[in-house]
Amino acid sequence: MPCAETSISVSPVLVAPANMDGAAERAGLSESSPRQRFLRLLQQYGPQDAHTETRLAKCITAALSNPGGLFRVELAYHAAVAHGMAPVLAEKLSCALEYFHIASLLLDDLPMMDDSMERRGQICPHLLFGEGTAILASLALIVRAYALLGEAIASAPVERQSAAHSFVERCLGVAGLVNGQARDLGFHAAVRCGLEARQIALQKTVPLIEMALVLPAMIGGASGRRLHHLRRLSVCWGLLYQAMDDLADVALSAEASGKTSGRDRLLGRPNVVHQLGRIRARSYLDRLMAIAGTCVETLVGEDRALAILRDLHAVLLQRRAALAKHD
Amino acid sequence: MPCAETSISVSPVLVAPANMDGAAERAGLSESSPRQRFLRLLQQYGPQDAHTETRLAKCITAALSNPGGLFRVELAYHAAVAHGMAPVLAEKLSCALEYFHIASLLLDDLPMMDDSMERRGQICPHLLFGEGTAILASLALIVRAYALLGEAIASAPVERQSAAHSFVERCLGVAGLVNGQARDLGFHAAVRCGLEARQIALQKTVPLIEMALVLPAMIGGASGRRLHHLRRLSVCWGLLYQAMDDLADVALSAEASGKTSGRDRLLGRPNVVHQLGRIRARSYLDRLMAIAGTCVETLVGEDRALAILRDLHAVLLQRRAALAKHD
Repeated sequence: MPCAETSISVSPVLVAPANMDGAAERAGLSESSPRQRFLRLLQQYGPQDAHTETRLAKCITAALSNPGGLFRVELAYHAAVAHGMAPVLAEKLSCALEYFHIASLLLDDLPMMDDSMERRGQICPHLLFGEGTAILASLALIVRAYALLGEAIASAPVERQSAAHSFVERCLGVAGLVNGQARDLGFHAAVRCGLEARQIALQKTVPLIEMALVLPAMIGGASGRRLHHLRRLSVCWGLLYQAMDDLADVALSAEASGKTSGRDRLLGRPNVVHQLGRIRARSYLDRLMAIAGTCVETLVGEDRALAILRDLHAVLLQRRAALAKHD
Repeated sequence: MPCAETSISVSPVLVAPANMDGAAERAGLSESSPRQRFLRLLQQYGPQDAHTETRLAKCITAALSNPGGLFRVELAYHAAVAHGMAPVLAEKLSCALEYFHIASLLLDDLPMMDDSMERRGQICPHLLFGEGTAILASLALIVRAYALLGEAIASAPVERQSAAHSFVERCLGVAGLVNGQARDLGFHAAVRCGLEARQIALQKTVPLIEMALVLPAMIGGASGRRLHHLRRLSVCWGLLYQAMDDLADVALSAEASGKTSGRDRLLGRPNVVHQLGRIRARSYLDRLMAIAGTCVETLVGEDRALAILRDLHAVLLQRRAALAKHD
């Protein structure tokens, strides 16, 4: 299934004014929205070297200049600050997670994966710069992401660092994202059922949201109870994200969704709407939304610093409502 | 150009008996050579999860079961032990570097890169398991490598960790390996000269050898002078490796080299033999070999713990001699 992402922008009011340490502020330039600030940060912390090969540099720039909803980057930034991380490190951590996400999209769109033509309303980079360059751009982003993540994890006391590195590996490797994509690719040959589709989403879409939400809490030394609730929320949000993406693939035109639609049916990929049917898929979405809402209230009830979770949950509710019009 | 690797095995006598902590030893199984031990370690520390998707698991196993000369893994292991790293961490660090190397080979062989049919005498994994699966296997190895590298770097005092992470990024990212491969891909469109071919090798082939040789020394707190000589040696060895690979691509049949030959001419890729001509390429090789030999003697002269460098240099001399028969 196409990798889940929302094409609905997070409203500027959702993000509280935050510590700014960047060049724009020092230069006295104002940024009209927190979203613009995150877009600037993604450029600022991106892979950079004066001698980067021309096509590779253009491909990286194109990938960084075509943002989605920035849900993960906002989530990670605020989760990190709420758990005591210095704002500059929180910026680096959150950009790292977005780089992993963009890298996964570059690869997902390749012909041997989802074979997509457009993403977020733009022609896919591999069609503009070549498949080899798109793979290398993806690697450049992954290498950059690991460097930034390494800095954020190194800020934790030594005894938490090992757990954080293991967590990152579990999320990204053969127990997480990479395996989810492999199962997605192999789905046409597997037993097609709703359970299988959800298990794939658990490995393919949950990990980056889990990293955004749980990793900052681990680095910040959150309690086991807090980590449990954050994990539960990230599972619900991840499954919601993927289910809404599946719904968009079925219900929206390419123009409305910003990417090639109808790919799941064509490629025989998992899609909860295909596996469960529209009525059961709708009730599945509603159940997930309800559980996520409860998790959010529990977390915010215990720590007001996490109030941003309510705003981010509202973004998902808003997207669900927008999709319902086409459902 | 095809990524440089030697298909000549490092002689068992080159590797000193080392601390063994693995399952085979605990089980009382003897390993007939240090090479076998490294092969076991590569399997032991590889990406593992009981629920890995079948094709992905097979692709990873195939990639790990078709080793080259293991030059990098031996180099990194002995450099790490010589600079005071605990043997178990040295094993992990050296396997991590081999995983990066194998990951780069999986990607290099893809149709949109070097479009190779065979590697080390075996059919390339992407032809057996699909291009998508080969890309995912490569990512699985990269994620595993970063986890192992993270453990090794975390063993250093905090003040050295940041430099080590930056060094890893410089070697692998847009200032290193990824850019070298991008320049390699774009070479047909660039000015073709010997200097350009060598600059590409500097970014494409030197970084993993530099990581094997210099990173353990950085973690171990080696002096600036020591680091300078190790860097110089890794540049010479990396360029030698690539130049000998270029020569093999021109001079050896696929049967003799173990991989698709003649690709550089066909794909318009950099190859020092094409850019310099045979006579100048031969003298270039001899110059590099002489400088590398001097570096080795300087390093071993200052620290007998680095005596293994002489044996590894002898492996390169041996390969040079073998190639000279076809030259």
